[in-house]
Amino acid sequence: MKGYIHIYTGNGKGKTTAAFGLSLRAAGAGKKVFIAQFVKGKTYAEIEAVRKYLPAITLKQYGLGCFIVKNPTPQDVDAARTGLTEITQILEQGEYDLVVLDEANIALHYKLFSVEELIDAIKRKRPETELVITGRYAPTELIDLADLVTEMKEVKHYYKKGVVARKGIEY
Amino acid sequence: MKGYIHIYTGNGKGKTTAAFGLSLRAAGAGKKVFIAQFVKGKTYAEIEAVRKYLPAITLKQYGLGCFIVKNPTPQDVDAARTGLTEITQILEQGEYDLVVLDEANIALHYKLFSVEELIDAIKRKRPETELVITGRYAPTELIDLADLVTEMKEVKHYYKKGVVARKGIEY
Repeated sequence: MKGYIHIYTGNGKGKTTAAFGLSLRAAGAGKKVFIAQFVKGKTYAEIEAVRKYLPAITLKQYGLGCFIVKNPTPQDVDAARTGLTEITQILEQGEYDLVVLDEANIALHYKLFSVEELIDAIKRKRPETELVITGRYAPTELIDLADLVTEMKEVKHYYKKGVVARKGIEY
Repeated sequence: MKGYIHIYTGNGKGKTTAAFGLSLRAAGAGKKVFIAQFVKGKTYAEIEAVRKYLPAITLKQYGLGCFIVKNPTPQDVDAARTGLTEITQILEQGEYDLVVLDEANIALHYKLFSVEELIDAIKRKRPETELVITGRYAPTELIDLADLVTEMKEVKHYYKKGVVARKGIEY
């Protein structure tokens, strides 16, 4: 079965959760899943759930656990580049049916690696591997390469009412 | 903690998976989740995963397992109305921290129940219950009521290339 490339981008809520929901669905169908999280490095509730309940999903973080506020540090770059190297190997080996690169678009946005480097990694994937890339600001080059692109568009958001991020809902 | 109302709508892929990903995240944070699926009645892979791995999530379907092609049958209406009655009780009781009404917008679209009836059910929820409604064609009245609305917008979709729905990816 041929695997396709999905992108979930845009400024609305639901990109990472869609990727996790898809991973859950894949696990339910007996597929093996690898989730690589770029930029993020904290143990969010979805990660606790995956580690506790979903043995078919392997998750690894390639971030420092804090948001990049201004310019990325050399440590941010190192963490992301380690991730890029590891996911390249993972895509080449083809052990996983579904590979998620969560927030890879954000890693590109902060120039932790280049879009050419990411495309080079993607091109090494086995034809049957399904690949999901999430994060705001998906670059045109990736959109061109992808088979399915959804823009999660913010129509209304409660942070504008002053709602702060809550464990189990936002993280 | 106050609970909010989310809507995931639009013609793009990722609405149901975002709701399931959010349910997974909530389960990871120790929350109790109820997922009501309207219109759908088949055992999709995400349901197999929930039933097998996620005891914190209760899932019930209020559909007949086949898509409504033209006009809904009396059986479609009955199934959805049973769901509406049951979720009203569930929202009143407040046993669950997160309640998902998957494809409720589609139930509205096919007039299986009215938006006034759904809003009446929603208004009975405990203030602390978080509520998620998914499906294309969210009506204005629901969008007005919601605190967070994301439109999943199709930018590119592989069904246009002739890719058929695959177990573990689309269902």
